[in-house]
Amino acid sequence: MIRYPYQRNPIIEEEKNISYSNRGMDFENAVNISNNYYREEDIAIIYKRPTPIHIVKVDYAHARIKDAYFEKQSTTDYNGIYKGRYIDFECKETKIKTSFSFHNISSHQIQHLEAVLRHNGIAFFLIYFSLLNEVYLLDAKYIVDKYEEKKRQSISYQEIKTYGTLVEQAYLPRLKYLDAVEKVYFNETSKSHN
Amino acid sequence: MIRYPYQRNPIIEEEKNISYSNRGMDFENAVNISNNYYREEDIAIIYKRPTPIHIVKVDYAHARIKDAYFEKQSTTDYNGIYKGRYIDFECKETKIKTSFSFHNISSHQIQHLEAVLRHNGIAFFLIYFSLLNEVYLLDAKYIVDKYEEKKRQSISYQEIKTYGTLVEQAYLPRLKYLDAVEKVYFNETSKSHN
Repeated sequence: MIRYPYQRNPIIEEEKNISYSNRGMDFENAVNISNNYYREEDIAIIYKRPTPIHIVKVDYAHARIKDAYFEKQSTTDYNGIYKGRYIDFECKETKIKTSFSFHNISSHQIQHLEAVLRHNGIAFFLIYFSLLNEVYLLDAKYIVDKYEEKKRQSISYQEIKTYGTLVEQAYLPRLKYLDAVEKVYFNETSKSHN
Repeated sequence: MIRYPYQRNPIIEEEKNISYSNRGMDFENAVNISNNYYREEDIAIIYKRPTPIHIVKVDYAHARIKDAYFEKQSTTDYNGIYKGRYIDFECKETKIKTSFSFHNISSHQIQHLEAVLRHNGIAFFLIYFSLLNEVYLLDAKYIVDKYEEKKRQSISYQEIKTYGTLVEQAYLPRLKYLDAVEKVYFNETSKSHN
């Protein structure tokens, strides 16, 4: 199925998400509606970058795009600002229960995350184990280091459980991933955004 | 003319820019190639947000977009990180020599910039007076304040000259706007990125 990356109705999406909750979560949508919540509550300003599109043909007379296709994101899916810090992260979903494969991470994304880390930004992955219904925040530096070991093709679930931080699922926000950001990057374990 | 927002060949674009320099600058392209330079030199990680596209029709069998149109940006054109600070800005071009009209700024953009300022990000406008061939950096707070006075519809060129900072034009980078950022937000007048 092709996803429409510019879906614009978070309320309907949210309802859909609730009624289908027993079938597992629409991860991307869960992140998007969490960002809407964080923005509306003025907690953080984080947006999904639109999926890049390669335009092949334009109908100039009517200002319409008549042929185009989705391109691979060369950076990450999300960026923005939280408590004065630049935030940049990528969301990945896996159906494997025992590990997270590097197969879906592009070298461009690794380079981008390394650059963000060099410039003192906060960079991480949100990894969704769909069959376990668990989301972990894992610092980008951990993945970048393992990725560049070359001999490795994946990180085990146990490693992620050990070095990552479990993201609490809730109603508002759907994914309380900024609580995990607090724990990892701001050392505040007691504060909760709810 | 419809602009292709995902133009991907900075080198060709740059050459075009040089050969056409006597006809005035392609402002958006000048900002983009400056960002490429800043990224390549590892000075800052700043990208243009893709123009949002509203997709009307998709050919699922071939994964092609068959009807779509450009939407208005609800945030700003550019964001990223510089020296650990979150950077967010909008580029505007005017053919009027005496003032910069608020006509092309949407209330969504003003709200977005206000939010960035509240969260301690660096937010500004780059304003290009094409007939004067001058680019100014003007802090977003200045524009937000004037915008919200309601009775005002524009800022005079003299005001921008007084409260803004002239951006030097060069070869690499084409627009040395981070030098202006240094002066305004980091208080370092002596350092130059060249």
